Amino acid sequence: MQISELGEFGLIDRLARAAGAEAPGDLTVGIGDDAAAWRVGDQVLLATTDTLVEGVHFLPEFAPWADVGWKALAVNVSDIAAMGGEPLFALATLALPPDTDVAAADDIYAGLAECAAQFGVAIVGGDIVRAPQVSVNIALIGRAQVQQGMPLLMRRDGAKAGDIIAVSGTLGDAAAGLWRLRKGAAHNEPLVQAHLRPVPPLETAQEAARTGIECAIDVSDSLIQDLGHICRQSARGAVVAAEKLPLSDDLRSAYPEDALALACTGGEDYQLLMTGDEGAIEQLRENVAVSVTVIGRMVEAEQHLPKLLDASGIEVALPNAGWDHLRRA
Amino acid sequence: MQISELGEFGLIDRLARAAGAEAPGDLTVGIGDDAAAWRVGDQVLLATTDTLVEGVHFLPEFAPWADVGWKALAVNVSDIAAMGGEPLFALATLALPPDTDVAAADDIYAGLAECAAQFGVAIVGGDIVRAPQVSVNIALIGRAQVQQGMPLLMRRDGAKAGDIIAVSGTLGDAAAGLWRLRKGAAHNEPLVQAHLRPVPPLETAQEAARTGIECAIDVSDSLIQDLGHICRQSARGAVVAAEKLPLSDDLRSAYPEDALALACTGGEDYQLLMTGDEGAIEQLRENVAVSVTVIGRMVEAEQHLPKLLDASGIEVALPNAGWDHLRRA
Repeated sequence: MQISELGEFGLIDRLARAAGAEAPGDLTVGIGDDAAAWRVGDQVLLATTDTLVEGVHFLPEFAPWADVGWKALAVNVSDIAAMGGEPLFALATLALPPDTDVAAADDIYAGLAECAAQFGVAIVGGDIVRAPQVSVNIALIGRAQVQQGMPLLMRRDGAKAGDIIAVSGTLGDAAAGLWRLRKGAAHNEPLVQAHLRPVPPLETAQEAARTGIECAIDVSDSLIQDLGHICRQSARGAVVAAEKLPLSDDLRSAYPEDALALACTGGEDYQLLMTGDEGAIEQLRENVAVSVTVIGRMVEAEQHLPKLLDASGIEVALPNAGWDHLRRA
Repeated sequence: MQISELGEFGLIDRLARAAGAEAPGDLTVGIGDDAAAWRVGDQVLLATTDTLVEGVHFLPEFAPWADVGWKALAVNVSDIAAMGGEPLFALATLALPPDTDVAAADDIYAGLAECAAQFGVAIVGGDIVRAPQVSVNIALIGRAQVQQGMPLLMRRDGAKAGDIIAVSGTLGDAAAGLWRLRKGAAHNEPLVQAHLRPVPPLETAQEAARTGIECAIDVSDSLIQDLGHICRQSARGAVVAAEKLPLSDDLRSAYPEDALALACTGGEDYQLLMTGDEGAIEQLRENVAVSVTVIGRMVEAEQHLPKLLDASGIEVALPNAGWDHLRRA
């Protein structure tokens, strides 16, 4: 069997099994969440890793190198944010073909450094290796917020039936931005910027954790797929109202026909998808500047999957279930 | 300018500059050592990352997948060992072509898990990405030993003039093992095993730190190149006696002519190269089961470079200065 038949999540399950059940006592969260978490004295540290590969996650003809550097770190900050934590230290591994221009490497570093400065991250190490194509791997270490001795962690398995589902910002812009880029759009178009330079809602996510929200994930694969992770790991269903999804005016005017599909299955939004009780979500909406939109509700269900309903309550069929870059289309 | 002209270490310097000087106060060791180190309460944590790329660091026709998994983690354990620390948690990123057989991924995981079990590491997360060739990136988090409130860290910049230079185990076996593999040698040959399944001297390194040795590096690039890092970062010279280098009987009999060159410039030994005062080195030799061989001495010198001398004190010319995989030969 080839891994394209198994898919990314099948492989992650196999890694989790290979890693075994002998987790040390100080490990709070292991494989399967946005970041691992473990106790160090009275603190809880977090660690996550994500990689951008040329030809898979970005195309050099469309993505300036500085944006590749920015995004490589930003997608990791998004993982730490989704746990409710604070990013601290990054290790950066650059894989480069030997004929890469030094200016490209410098631009990647400059983008990395810019993102690091924006989110208070120190780049403390890394590696440089030769490879046939460029890739940037980041390992990011962070810290959970702690309140009265308890870490404020938002986990994928923390959703309860009856929880409200909410999402920060707007959905579908990044996927639309990639379409626009391929049509030759200018890099300063807002949709294109959403694709090239995602800005994870770090402060909003930290405020969410302080507000008592205990379940979140970042929207990296797609709304439907990432909500699917919450459903499976929390053993609940989810019902999402299609007409409530937050769509930007830019998205609606650029792709009126496809806006909903892009918002549901486009991926790479790096927004915060969370579930919690109505009061907590309402309080968060009042406390943060970023928009937080209620889009649905967690339910008891036989199938631990999200359902997307239209205004009359009829299930909406989506073109595909999400983004798994190892599976063949 | 292409990066092949600049080389790996030139690029690392550029990364260090891009990362800026605004290191947070809790950072003890930043870019340029075997691992970064930072304070968390009364502990000091360590983090390092290393990647193996197909066609660059291993050839699938020679290296069983399980050995690739083992080695990917072992080389990171070696970095934590070289700081005198204890490895704790690993993040594993697998890059795989979609047509990779699932059995290959399972074997990589099995090798990873075996190495993790041997060194007390928990695999707590990771990522799986599509790429044109296989690579395995590990980020490894560890902890420094602490004695009376002080972290026992062995740093590259800790060598003093007059320090004895010593190295664990034997040198050159791994490079010879790669030659043997290319000749079709059996995988269970000791030289081949040294190449495929390096075993970093973790306990010896921890004992070295407890014995008061304050300067070490792991021999990954090569004895001469890694001693060169110590020289530059400690602003000292080094004099090494060629006839004192620890060469295994296997190496001497397989490559009698090339044994010295392989030991000096072959790389991938993952032994501990350290400097310290005579008493500390002597005490370490008594306290550990692994062989620890005195090979030279740190000196005041204008040039911060190692010199290799023969028995009559004449400098030995080496075929090349070491291993920089980004530079062209």
